[in-house]
Amino acid sequence: MTTQAIPREPQQDRSRATRQRLLEAAIDCLASVGWTGTTVAVVAKRAGVSRGAAQHHFRTREELVTAAVEYGSDVRVDRVRERLYSLADERPSTLEVLTLLGEMYTSPLFRAALQLWVAASSDEQLRAQVVPMEARFGREAHRLTVEALGVDESVPGVRETVQATLDLVRGLGLADLLTDDSARRERLLRQWATTLDMALGR
Amino acid sequence: MTTQAIPREPQQDRSRATRQRLLEAAIDCLASVGWTGTTVAVVAKRAGVSRGAAQHHFRTREELVTAAVEYGSDVRVDRVRERLYSLADERPSTLEVLTLLGEMYTSPLFRAALQLWVAASSDEQLRAQVVPMEARFGREAHRLTVEALGVDESVPGVRETVQATLDLVRGLGLADLLTDDSARRERLLRQWATTLDMALGR
Repeated sequence: MTTQAIPREPQQDRSRATRQRLLEAAIDCLASVGWTGTTVAVVAKRAGVSRGAAQHHFRTREELVTAAVEYGSDVRVDRVRERLYSLADERPSTLEVLTLLGEMYTSPLFRAALQLWVAASSDEQLRAQVVPMEARFGREAHRLTVEALGVDESVPGVRETVQATLDLVRGLGLADLLTDDSARRERLLRQWATTLDMALGR
Repeated sequence: MTTQAIPREPQQDRSRATRQRLLEAAIDCLASVGWTGTTVAVVAKRAGVSRGAAQHHFRTREELVTAAVEYGSDVRVDRVRERLYSLADERPSTLEVLTLLGEMYTSPLFRAALQLWVAASSDEQLRAQVVPMEARFGREAHRLTVEALGVDESVPGVRETVQATLDLVRGLGLADLLTDDSARRERLLRQWATTLDMALGR
């Protein structure tokens, strides 16, 4: 009788919360211990979820990691977009945009994604799943950067210059993998902002 | 009696040749099957060297891979330098320099190095070996780029712009990991050459 009176968390919400905990734990796990150490069992333990429940959501490491990187990428793009639009009424400066992009590519998510890319580079099946996901994320990151910089892609060279900026921050992410590269990155992005303003005629 | 009459390859030379074959096979192996699949035994087989002989040179996968990436990086820098100086009597164009750098960061060596960096990111002992090696390679690649572009680093911003160029090609290397990115890379580097000439006042 009383069971109906006490409001219960609907099962669907609980299942969604469990899934999200697993995805977040998978990103942390990949970023800290790498691909080999990231098994469904290890991630389940880190998330405080039973192994059975974890395997109900994700049967394999590949499924879990791919879903985690996709989820993390979406969250990251949304957060950067929110921060850009909360900066001010006016358009953010080039350096502000570059700093946010730099943070995006040196986060645990970048490290986690790197583990997935490297694993996919020698696994055809995994590659087939990762390539379309990365293409979608690449398009979103590109659109976000164009919006944030407020540039016109119909002007010759603008598209390539925006792409180069994203390839640069990706390279900076890699440079930060083994040592703290933040001081050099800051100097470099400050100079890049000047170059970019000149190249884009901002 | 006859053994002394026939000129024999000195043992030291043979040992050096064996070592080099192992290093080259390790780079191929890492680039194609990744870290997990690259064991001393697998590399020995690929190099046509007995497992015992391989283990005489390299006791562990970590030793072999670190030595291979170091050897490969030195060879690669030397080759780029040779090609730059064989181009013409005059200084190479910015696009020629960028194209060579782009090739350097999309080679099997880059893929092999990426495997090592990612493995080192979650292995303290390996990281301690890789960091100074990468710092040395970074300095050499930087010096080579400055020489090739013929720019003056005492001018404010030049050092950062050269560094950004190297981070950009590193990012392009990563973008080429899962799909053939060569057409986009070519367009991007052509545009980047124009920007760089403007930024460096070439």
